[in-house]
Amino acid sequence: VKQSKQVPVAVAGATGYAGVEVVRLLSAHPGVVLAALTSEQYHGRAIADVYPFLRGRLSHVLEPLDAAALADRAQTVITALPHGKSALFVAELVRRGCRVLDLSADFRLHDPAAYGRWYGEHPVPALLRDAVYGLVELHREDIRRARLVAVPGCYPTGMLLGVVPLVRHGCARPGATITVDAKSGATGAGRSARTELLFCEVAETVRAYDIGTHRHTPEMEQELAAAGGGQWSVLFAPHLLPARRGILTTIYVPLADGCTAARCEEAFRATYAGEPFIDLMGAGVYPAIRDVQGTNRCAIGWWIDEMRRVAVIVTTIDNLGKGAAGQAVQCLNLHLDYPETTGLDQPALVP
Amino acid sequence: VKQSKQVPVAVAGATGYAGVEVVRLLSAHPGVVLAALTSEQYHGRAIADVYPFLRGRLSHVLEPLDAAALADRAQTVITALPHGKSALFVAELVRRGCRVLDLSADFRLHDPAAYGRWYGEHPVPALLRDAVYGLVELHREDIRRARLVAVPGCYPTGMLLGVVPLVRHGCARPGATITVDAKSGATGAGRSARTELLFCEVAETVRAYDIGTHRHTPEMEQELAAAGGGQWSVLFAPHLLPARRGILTTIYVPLADGCTAARCEEAFRATYAGEPFIDLMGAGVYPAIRDVQGTNRCAIGWWIDEMRRVAVIVTTIDNLGKGAAGQAVQCLNLHLDYPETTGLDQPALVP
Amino acid sequence: VKQSKQVPVAVAGATGYAGVEVVRLLSAHPGVVLAALTSEQYHGRAIADVYPFLRGRLSHVLEPLDAAALADRAQTVITALPHGKSALFVAELVRRGCRVLDLSADFRLHDPAAYGRWYGEHPVPALLRDAVYGLVELHREDIRRARLVAVPGCYPTGMLLGVVPLVRHGCARPGATITVDAKSGATGAGRSARTELLFCEVAETVRAYDIGTHRHTPEMEQELAAAGGGQWSVLFAPHLLPARRGILTTIYVPLADGCTAARCEEAFRATYAGEPFIDLMGAGVYPAIRDVQGTNRCAIGWWIDEMRRVAVIVTTIDNLGKGAAGQAVQCLNLHLDYPETTGLDQPALVP
Amino acid sequence: VKQSKQVPVAVAGATGYAGVEVVRLLSAHPGVVLAALTSEQYHGRAIADVYPFLRGRLSHVLEPLDAAALADRAQTVITALPHGKSALFVAELVRRGCRVLDLSADFRLHDPAAYGRWYGEHPVPALLRDAVYGLVELHREDIRRARLVAVPGCYPTGMLLGVVPLVRHGCARPGATITVDAKSGATGAGRSARTELLFCEVAETVRAYDIGTHRHTPEMEQELAAAGGGQWSVLFAPHLLPARRGILTTIYVPLADGCTAARCEEAFRATYAGEPFIDLMGAGVYPAIRDVQGTNRCAIGWWIDEMRRVAVIVTTIDNLGKGAAGQAVQCLNLHLDYPETTGLDQPALVP
Repeated sequence: VKQSKQVPVAVAGATGYAGVEVVRLLSAHPGVVLAALTSEQYHGRAIADVYPFLRGRLSHVLEPLDAAALADRAQTVITALPHGKSALFVAELVRRGCRVLDLSADFRLHDPAAYGRWYGEHPVPALLRDAVYGLVELHREDIRRARLVAVPGCYPTGMLLGVVPLVRHGCARPGATITVDAKSGATGAGRSARTELLFCEVAETVRAYDIGTHRHTPEMEQELAAAGGGQWSVLFAPHLLPARRGILTTIYVPLADGCTAARCEEAFRATYAGEPFIDLMGAGVYPAIRDVQGTNRCAIGWWIDEMRRVAVIVTTIDNLGKGAAGQAVQCLNLHLDYPETTGLDQPALVP
Repeated sequence: VKQSKQVPVAVAGATGYAGVEVVRLLSAHPGVVLAALTSEQYHGRAIADVYPFLRGRLSHVLEPLDAAALADRAQTVITALPHGKSALFVAELVRRGCRVLDLSADFRLHDPAAYGRWYGEHPVPALLRDAVYGLVELHREDIRRARLVAVPGCYPTGMLLGVVPLVRHGCARPGATITVDAKSGATGAGRSARTELLFCEVAETVRAYDIGTHRHTPEMEQELAAAGGGQWSVLFAPHLLPARRGILTTIYVPLADGCTAARCEEAFRATYAGEPFIDLMGAGVYPAIRDVQGTNRCAIGWWIDEMRRVAVIVTTIDNLGKGAAGQAVQCLNLHLDYPETTGLDQPALVP
Repeated sequence: VKQSKQVPVAVAGATGYAGVEVVRLLSAHPGVVLAALTSEQYHGRAIADVYPFLRGRLSHVLEPLDAAALADRAQTVITALPHGKSALFVAELVRRGCRVLDLSADFRLHDPAAYGRWYGEHPVPALLRDAVYGLVELHREDIRRARLVAVPGCYPTGMLLGVVPLVRHGCARPGATITVDAKSGATGAGRSARTELLFCEVAETVRAYDIGTHRHTPEMEQELAAAGGGQWSVLFAPHLLPARRGILTTIYVPLADGCTAARCEEAFRATYAGEPFIDLMGAGVYPAIRDVQGTNRCAIGWWIDEMRRVAVIVTTIDNLGKGAAGQAVQCLNLHLDYPETTGLDQPALVP
Repeated sequence: VKQSKQVPVAVAGATGYAGVEVVRLLSAHPGVVLAALTSEQYHGRAIADVYPFLRGRLSHVLEPLDAAALADRAQTVITALPHGKSALFVAELVRRGCRVLDLSADFRLHDPAAYGRWYGEHPVPALLRDAVYGLVELHREDIRRARLVAVPGCYPTGMLLGVVPLVRHGCARPGATITVDAKSGATGAGRSARTELLFCEVAETVRAYDIGTHRHTPEMEQELAAAGGGQWSVLFAPHLLPARRGILTTIYVPLADGCTAARCEEAFRATYAGEPFIDLMGAGVYPAIRDVQGTNRCAIGWWIDEMRRVAVIVTTIDNLGKGAAGQAVQCLNLHLDYPETTGLDQPALVP
């Protein structure tokens, strides 16, 4: 039942894994009408033809990428385009008056110089200042007002939600290196047809990649600095899992002098009181990624090693949910003045 | 927001895979309040402790199995107990005035003699006559009025939805043997701790079992006879997949003389016009189980080999959805006079 | 320790899944020295760089495809090239005096007209007559003498080993349609970078494809005719599994009048007495693909439904083993006058 | 062809995952005859009935556990019994003159007090002093002479092979905490029928467990102290993967002052020169577990973060190979004076 008050939203890049997850979520969102879906690879075909699980649910035909066409028909555009391709397109949408939730990395770093070091020269650096980093638990009010939201990377989301409480409440040793060992499902690598992502290359194996050099590192460091004051160094080691969705992040944070397990727990409780998507499991209880698959939740457990002076934090999110599409919808709900959980309240599919 | 008009429903056997899927679905159903959940294995513990994906969603403590206690508090009971254990408990619930949706095999066969041959002597044979076979697409009006619904087996559901149109419309060769080659996810084998169901025994392999002797055979034959008149012989070969949810059923039906591909297609279209959960994909288009995982849908494709005189039908369902819990909720919606899709309208989780 | 008596063998197409399995097997074969490995995609790189499991084992650098270069250095060439690309290259190798074991489909059909209907016009039809179909259990002596062996397709291998005993011994109803429902691991689809073969597209799902139209059908029909006299019609339905290696084939053969379960069993025993790679599991015992993964074995179980007059046969092979590379090495052993099991005697990797 | 010089070896606990891997390896070992196989769960049945992949390969009937019976018939016994059950049985075998390779944890810790803290009181503490820790790369000569070898745990093996070079060569900061983030396949949890190990509980998920409290911690600390002098503190975080075999261990070692990437590389090269099972992949190159599945190899890559002063080391082993059965066979080869690679020279099964 489409009501006149439903807001028209377009999705650019609707057939990648993050894009189609946005589509999936919005197809069940009461306040949204899907105004247009674009796909460079499949335009001209019905999305339900590319993704048969949408048969009988959506009749949209995929369109080519055209900022003017989207701006005419949509109030908000959610862009799920490859990094680098997004910036100019987003800028054009903003110029035409759209609100934009951008899933790419193009507007996550505020500092053009930092962006340049990791990604190359930014094509619209002036817009970096306007973009708000879309981690709702950290920047809720700024997001509510933002015209352009840079939806966080999946790895930074899983890491920041685990570490920020300790950094904010003085539990982390100032200046220490924070070690982040993340294990991601294969959807995190996207849907491009690459040999290394074939079933026969991913099943029954696991591997590390880009240790210490992954582009999500500066994003983590930027937000930790914003959350806790001072500089934090992050050593990030991502791994690819034989699973489709979900990131489990194990984080090793050196404890500040005198900090106890009890103070760490207080930091978690204080930071996340009332947060609808954060599930604090407690000390010695660890989450499993299956319990958040398909949801916008982040589950957090920890083990505070007082003897070795390290807090071990384990978080899990769905990389396509809280790590991408779910987070975008959570931001959209702020924009639309809906409860944050609207369209995001389904339980995980277990088993 | 629980309203006074919400109907109290209890789930007996709430921690098996089918039981917890009922719980998952009802936790998001607007017309139902979960009155009680039982578990023989875990009673005394919170269900969210056994299934952390329900944390923050349900606070129920699991109870021991007690018909009087359930009948006091629930208008309808959905029973997901092991075969054989269900019959007397269901009888007691019915005697106490509950409506019952029974997921076991105990009331699916109408003929006590047939039941005896496959399962042993039935403890309450008189009740077999009252039970209605809960395949909505075949028995909608009877289900609406039934006090006791025998929710169909997962394999018969996937098979019957594919074959009944051809049997009803004279496309199947009378008296022919219908060959059913089914591939099921491992949730179909339940959640009991058996060595053969361990990850390391199921992953990266597939095997056949119980060919020609599986207990779902008489259920298929009973319903085909009801649908098409006359006797049909079913040769059933089930296989276990390295996947969690879903059944893909490939069915080989000898064609009646003169029957064409066009007539088969008409049979499918005529049978399922307006059915909200049936997706006819068409000739030469085959469904994949992932497209229905987590849903109550059944997708059907076919290939009519006019030369070899065989209709090959491929159906897919989620064995825990349309093959168990989803089907039970669909029946419940009939009882509650809700639209059949209530609580069953979420899309599959792809990928 | 390379001995002078080791025979130089080259592998063309050494980085596809079948090609690298040939390499893996020959790297441990006492009678063979790997003379050259070619790869169109990776030439110039070390094979141990493309496949790190070969590090410390093989130092070969991959070469471009060049018939003259191979013929100079190898006595036998095993070609694992795509269908269509193989024929002319094989013809050139034969002309230059090489023995060739060809894993493509290009020389499996003896009849150029049949080839034309399924694949298009054959570029060297004269050579079709010389090629021997390389299923050792059916054509051992012809293979021993052949200059060109067409190594059978994976599906036909799994099907023929199950059906030929019944056809040969009069157990199959003459002229009946034989229904073949095969479930294959994803290596069967090769290693090309296609979206539909990504981990996230294959995991946790299964789908049917090419029912009644798969190109392996004429190969099955040709060999059944050769084995049993008369024409046999095959209805073939392949399915893609979420597993890497292995094919489980469930075959439905209408029984000849008067044929009993005992006669079927005799047919199996008589056909395969002394065969080193055939494992007859018996009636009511079904193989699992994991038990043959990595081997050249074919395990066979069956269930003879005397009432419904159908023999259900279940076979399993490793599609890369007995279905491709293992079978090629078995043929090579015949050529080299080694025991057939040489280099093929390692047990499966379970679990 | 069994020769008189073949040594009779028995396997106690032959149907667990580690036990059957010993059987698999020894079934292809030229210097060994399998004298007896025991199984508490399956005695009286043929091992090929429990594990069909051994059909046609082994005809042994499983026996109950009886030290006298084994000692009569075997020169060496490989025990793969549960922790706690092994100690007294092993002591009895040693008393009767057998050489024993014990896969349990019962003899890995030299200090009875340490054993007591982690496992409870040791039943034969005197024997702890005689047992040699069976990591060949660290203790080759002691193992050669040992009557009782405590085969290392899977996690310590993967960890120690990565860290010992840095500890020995002064690259690790003295007294620092070494963080070990390990990801293990499900065979590591054994073959007991526990709900949490079912396919439907393990597939498509990953979880952490026993962080900071896992019993393999003291084993790691003991061997680091032996290798490097002084005390090392290990923070160990194990994770369970949706894969069957293999451990990927990511290790974070604080660098000693002044230590460079080049010195770390030298440490690796110097430590492992000539080692047949160690594969040094180099800086910035990381192993994948599939490349060692089924083998006795350990592949090692690293990334030295000179700025953050941390060496990140990634190792991979097959937990049933170098982490259990393979390592036992490597030790056995030392005892039998065979080349260490005998029976362990097959390549991994990729894909």
